[in-house]
Amino acid sequence: MAKPPFLVFIMAGGSGERFWPMSRKAKPKQLLKLVSPHTLLEETVRRLRPLARKPADLLILTNHAQISGVRKALPTFPKSSLIPEPAKRDTAPAAALATALAIRRHPEAILALLPADAVIGKSPIYRAQLAAGARAAQATSSFVTLGIKPSHPATGFGYLHLGAKTLPKIKGGPFHKVRRFVEKPSLSKAKKYCRSGQYAWNAGIYLWKASTFLAEARRQQPKLARFIERFPKRGSGPSVEAYVKREFPKLPKISVDYAIMEGAKSVLALKAIFPWDDVGSWSALPAHLPTDKKGNTFRGSVVAIDSQNSLALAEGGRTVALLGTKDLVVVDTPDALLVCPKDRVQEVKKLMSLLPRDVI
Amino acid sequence: MAKPPFLVFIMAGGSGERFWPMSRKAKPKQLLKLVSPHTLLEETVRRLRPLARKPADLLILTNHAQISGVRKALPTFPKSSLIPEPAKRDTAPAAALATALAIRRHPEAILALLPADAVIGKSPIYRAQLAAGARAAQATSSFVTLGIKPSHPATGFGYLHLGAKTLPKIKGGPFHKVRRFVEKPSLSKAKKYCRSGQYAWNAGIYLWKASTFLAEARRQQPKLARFIERFPKRGSGPSVEAYVKREFPKLPKISVDYAIMEGAKSVLALKAIFPWDDVGSWSALPAHLPTDKKGNTFRGSVVAIDSQNSLALAEGGRTVALLGTKDLVVVDTPDALLVCPKDRVQEVKKLMSLLPRDVI
Repeated sequence: MAKPPFLVFIMAGGSGERFWPMSRKAKPKQLLKLVSPHTLLEETVRRLRPLARKPADLLILTNHAQISGVRKALPTFPKSSLIPEPAKRDTAPAAALATALAIRRHPEAILALLPADAVIGKSPIYRAQLAAGARAAQATSSFVTLGIKPSHPATGFGYLHLGAKTLPKIKGGPFHKVRRFVEKPSLSKAKKYCRSGQYAWNAGIYLWKASTFLAEARRQQPKLARFIERFPKRGSGPSVEAYVKREFPKLPKISVDYAIMEGAKSVLALKAIFPWDDVGSWSALPAHLPTDKKGNTFRGSVVAIDSQNSLALAEGGRTVALLGTKDLVVVDTPDALLVCPKDRVQEVKKLMSLLPRDVI
Repeated sequence: MAKPPFLVFIMAGGSGERFWPMSRKAKPKQLLKLVSPHTLLEETVRRLRPLARKPADLLILTNHAQISGVRKALPTFPKSSLIPEPAKRDTAPAAALATALAIRRHPEAILALLPADAVIGKSPIYRAQLAAGARAAQATSSFVTLGIKPSHPATGFGYLHLGAKTLPKIKGGPFHKVRRFVEKPSLSKAKKYCRSGQYAWNAGIYLWKASTFLAEARRQQPKLARFIERFPKRGSGPSVEAYVKREFPKLPKISVDYAIMEGAKSVLALKAIFPWDDVGSWSALPAHLPTDKKGNTFRGSVVAIDSQNSLALAEGGRTVALLGTKDLVVVDTPDALLVCPKDRVQEVKKLMSLLPRDVI
């Protein structure tokens, strides 16, 4: 049998609520050009491409409703590597689908599964750490995750409680045993985690051997295991497409962290040494864009007098004039406009239930 | 000779800066539908029409650049009563032009000259007070003005210092002698004026006998006097249009208050007993529009969560979403958007020098 392949699966789903009005249901965050002339998805594909030994080793999992947007963003990406999920599920079904596709390729395949919408710097280091993670996953049959060093006591992320160092001999190590997964903590707990130095943010970047995932699924998530076991073999009768269309929507809506990782026998973490930012809301954007002396971040036809620390994106083809605004977010698009203080941007998704259907 | 006519001249000029982006150079405040389904100019014409003994007694002075906007707002208004000013001057040249046109009609004509862009209630009372002013102007050869009782120590208006009561026998009186015209005061002075009860806001609503204005112009403003004296007589050679086009631009850029009223031998004031609001900026608008429990005034497709005391006008055909805004003004039009705290709206005109030409 050939050497086991290393397959990289990019998860490009998401609901497109946090970056409304630029993002929409059919155009979620990873399809936006938020921090560069390229969409976040395009940036992610470019960043990961050198890691794939052959083009077919890089795949994208996306929601069926977003597939045309993904194709438009990546016109040269092989269609056969673009996997539509026929229903909106969480990350555990996506992980099972990735694993099943990997096993179809090779029973001992190694996978990386990671989100499409983070901003990541120092790509060569990032790739080297993913490769190191793949080696550890292969050598130990552990799950491997890349943990981000917290820059502040964020309450919007899950944390990894890191334990003893291990695998000093694997190139790119040492790794840490993950003692515990912690869900989004309170601010006081987050502060404690930051001070301790024993915690890392969970960025949702995972690596595993297909056989490892299948074994843990059998133990923890029989439905996911069955989905993988019954997945059409290469050259066999039923088509992958028809199987996924029929079976995927039956899978539980559950995250891979909760379904598999938290209860897994062994999870290792590598401390990320590349810059990483989730860019979780409008207020995270200025850190990645040119900002003037008064802390303003403007894009497009924006005119301002005496404004401070404001973010204004004129993407609607009209002139945006700010006078005396402070700590304000103004995002203008052709059919919808958002005005919101910076410290309230986390709540943008609350608007969805009030907005006219044609602008969500 | 026939009974002297009472001519009402509406001044519809203005620069269209304070209500940007709804107002533009060619579409100043009085051409906006700010507080009703009608433009302020249309409201003013409707309010004054019953005062005119015949349609030709109601005239509009406007800037040549705005004439097409005025015609569009008032499609049935007689073209011959729509007087274009061929250059942007202040109110003294407008007053001279009105006086000259009145004299051409009748040497003892009475005139009212008033702005087109105030919001005025109780129209019958308003008209009765103008009629009373006309009687006083005719009887005494004084200038007559209607003074507004200050509701707060405004620093954006001139004030009239009122003296002794006079003319108790004229119906609609008594009148007050105007002791002094005070230009826009400091806040401390404005407070003193309000407390004293002896001051009224100068609303720029004036009445005079044509001969009174001519006499004062001869004494104080010889250029204005000459403009009136040389004005083409009815049935004589040169056309009014050609004369105005040639001579009006030569007149000094000066207000009628400063040029004539402040130095006039006699000015009387009638205390207005009708509701009056200059509606001087965006922040003055909510008082005239429906407002919700949280003090928000919304028009058009506006969606809001947890916003307070904010004004949002969605006039651009798109959805405006506010989240957590406080004391904010958001005005959206098809080609320009303004975002500004309520307490800064006085400065909107400062934006003009920064804005692209096609949106001013």
